Amino acid sequence: MPSRAELLRELRLRVGDAAVLDAPPAELLTDQRGLYQGAVAAVVAPQSTAQVASLLAYCHEQRISVVPQGGNTGYCGGATPDASGSQLLLLLSGLKAIRAVDPDNYSLTAEAGCILATIKQAAAAAQRYFPLALGSEGSCQLGGNLSTNAGGLNVLRYGMTRDLVLGLEVVLADGRVLDTLRALRKDNTGYDIKSLFIGAEGTLGVITAATLKLLPQPLASATAFVAIPSPAQAVALLARLRAVSGERVASFELIPRIAIELTTRLIAGVADPLDDSSPWYLLVELTSSAADEQLNACLDQALEAAMNAGEISNASVAQNERQRSDFWRLRESIPAAQRRAGASLKHDVSLPITALPRFVAVASAWVAQHVPEGYLVAYGHVGDGNLHFNITASGAGEALLRRQAEIKRVIHDLVHEMHGSFSAEHGIGQLKLEELERYTDPVELELMRTLKQAFDPRGILNPGKVLRNAK
Amino acid sequence: MPSRAELLRELRLRVGDAAVLDAPPAELLTDQRGLYQGAVAAVVAPQSTAQVASLLAYCHEQRISVVPQGGNTGYCGGATPDASGSQLLLLLSGLKAIRAVDPDNYSLTAEAGCILATIKQAAAAAQRYFPLALGSEGSCQLGGNLSTNAGGLNVLRYGMTRDLVLGLEVVLADGRVLDTLRALRKDNTGYDIKSLFIGAEGTLGVITAATLKLLPQPLASATAFVAIPSPAQAVALLARLRAVSGERVASFELIPRIAIELTTRLIAGVADPLDDSSPWYLLVELTSSAADEQLNACLDQALEAAMNAGEISNASVAQNERQRSDFWRLRESIPAAQRRAGASLKHDVSLPITALPRFVAVASAWVAQHVPEGYLVAYGHVGDGNLHFNITASGAGEALLRRQAEIKRVIHDLVHEMHGSFSAEHGIGQLKLEELERYTDPVELELMRTLKQAFDPRGILNPGKVLRNAK
Repeated sequence: MPSRAELLRELRLRVGDAAVLDAPPAELLTDQRGLYQGAVAAVVAPQSTAQVASLLAYCHEQRISVVPQGGNTGYCGGATPDASGSQLLLLLSGLKAIRAVDPDNYSLTAEAGCILATIKQAAAAAQRYFPLALGSEGSCQLGGNLSTNAGGLNVLRYGMTRDLVLGLEVVLADGRVLDTLRALRKDNTGYDIKSLFIGAEGTLGVITAATLKLLPQPLASATAFVAIPSPAQAVALLARLRAVSGERVASFELIPRIAIELTTRLIAGVADPLDDSSPWYLLVELTSSAADEQLNACLDQALEAAMNAGEISNASVAQNERQRSDFWRLRESIPAAQRRAGASLKHDVSLPITALPRFVAVASAWVAQHVPEGYLVAYGHVGDGNLHFNITASGAGEALLRRQAEIKRVIHDLVHEMHGSFSAEHGIGQLKLEELERYTDPVELELMRTLKQAFDPRGILNPGKVLRNAK
Repeated sequence: MPSRAELLRELRLRVGDAAVLDAPPAELLTDQRGLYQGAVAAVVAPQSTAQVASLLAYCHEQRISVVPQGGNTGYCGGATPDASGSQLLLLLSGLKAIRAVDPDNYSLTAEAGCILATIKQAAAAAQRYFPLALGSEGSCQLGGNLSTNAGGLNVLRYGMTRDLVLGLEVVLADGRVLDTLRALRKDNTGYDIKSLFIGAEGTLGVITAATLKLLPQPLASATAFVAIPSPAQAVALLARLRAVSGERVASFELIPRIAIELTTRLIAGVADPLDDSSPWYLLVELTSSAADEQLNACLDQALEAAMNAGEISNASVAQNERQRSDFWRLRESIPAAQRRAGASLKHDVSLPITALPRFVAVASAWVAQHVPEGYLVAYGHVGDGNLHFNITASGAGEALLRRQAEIKRVIHDLVHEMHGSFSAEHGIGQLKLEELERYTDPVELELMRTLKQAFDPRGILNPGKVLRNAK
């Protein structure tokens, strides 16, 4: 390990003085949930893939740990350095070129530091659509979206981030540059290596650019706010809508009554879309790239049939863009409302959608009975079987937070029992190492360690994230 | 290496007498194109994952090479043993259970030996659809489809086999069993290991079962046979159809005039769908899971607009199921007609669809000028940028086949220059080792060798396929 002065000198040589931050802004050293506080030897903001390669070659030789960071919007502390003060924080924000847009090939190549919203705008400017949709899209970066295999609001229709990638450019632990930036739909030439880096949270390599799939723009949409007695009806309604709409369902979000109360009380401009109260709601949206498609009629029809079948108790179909954005504003305000309501325990779980109603019933009953310190705010992308099963503190929060480990264990054990996942879209970071070890098939865990060893034998890439540091 | 008698005794102990074939049927030792002829020490047909695990544990300990084989319908010799007579041929056909079908979760779990058609039938029996569509679906097996990441006729709409997999069960080189059979849409818990085995042709592990995505059944369809002056118009028409149909395009197949002449002359019951002749044709199909959707009207409208825009010169929209199946019969008869027409050189290439017209122009001109021994039959899944750029012998064939290496080199160099792939869907097997080494990014190739070493350190899994045996 070189002295700090040597380190800074060497870094400045490789990326230029301006790209080496001597005194790092505090917000870079903590995660956005405020769970972790790190320290660094230095912060670098390279401007090109070649500079990233040069930095990693040096860090590899000197065995300096590197923590890549994008928009720092992750939920699991994956981009926060440890407290040792010996790690290098690698900001990708300097790599922000959109290298190519090919509308007829429905593809776009962008660098890791591009803000997601910027990529979506570049696609739209070419009459194309990049479907990844996240609450943080105004600040999160492509590199982070790829490294966490981000999910979001459009997974049901378009898949996770991994499903939207055609090729990657990755700097490996020793500074070698892997270039698989191919804009091909079909390419069976050897092992699918790129997929390994997606969702690896920077522990196997540093993604510097990606070639992404684009889709036709959704030009028609129909959106409804629907009241249902219980999550069981959500499963029935989704099956019905998938069939009658001809795969037009783009979003299918489950919302509990409490979320309506929190958002209408705590977020300005949010109103209850329906006049009577219901224990559960769905925000349903159909979209199509055919501008003239009569989606409202299709949605009206399906909802009427569902009403007659007793699946739903009430529904409001947005009659204009303002109503539509009101529905979405409510849904997107839930996390903020929950933050304002107080401390909360978050559980990002997924289940086979057929198991979801039973999970909600059993887990909710357990919370009601055993967690007087808080109340349940369970919402999410139920169309994907993904539920944010969160518990918000009734009081100051300390009492609830003290029970975090115990409560998490009960909920995740139940999820595991029902063949679900304890991390549907948030990843592992440093927050869920224990869960990964507890719930993952031992052979799968061994293979993950084998891969880490093979790709990063010196363990310099985001050590202690996804997998614990090797003893 | 044990004596043959010892080997057979040990195998019988592990899988039972009936599952060890002493004298293997000759057709198992050659590939379906007749390019390779192998020999074996023995052939085993285990009946369960546990038996496969037991066999691999033994082979690992004894350093016996294992060649997994499914329906033996591959194009690159990936399932054919070498000539040494020392390898074990592992048939997966005994693992043929459909373990679970969950219609509401749109998932199905099946074992590697299931015939693809059987899986599609099981899905249909639950009012669901498994979209993988191959000419060989009546005999190919799921394990082979997964191990080659099979493509086929529905990739444009539904993706490659990899895109249809939720989880895998894999027996590793040393007999450990990896179980990732999860029926989840979202699961960000560590590295995406399953993807590595898909398309690895049995060189990293032996896939014994998979949990697959199901889709709603296509209940409405519209099919047209379209005449176009050149492939450039195919690109324009595809963009038009994707937009106006709202992502309804399920198939988009390019067919050259020569294929019409070959199929109508050589295949009983195939007729020319259009009365006048055209240099190129498209077989276009829209599908929807909404039974009442008026796809014919949508297709008629789009084709009329394309006609007015001068993109197409003629078109026939199927008015009934018989016409539709006639169109498809023509398309699906092309490989057989080509076989009957004589020997041929096959090139399974893909390009960014925007580069495809230029490739066809340049490559066709080269063939016309430099390959008097044969004529071009270029057809394929142009919607995916995938072209079967084949050359059929005018005469007896020896003259053409003698020039195989040279011709292949020119065509693949051109594909590479245009950022395409020399193997879009057929894989590598033992046929394309040299191309993989020539055209793959060196760093990517190093990583493939790193992965092979990490997953199969003794090199017993289908050695010499995908990657050359380590020296």
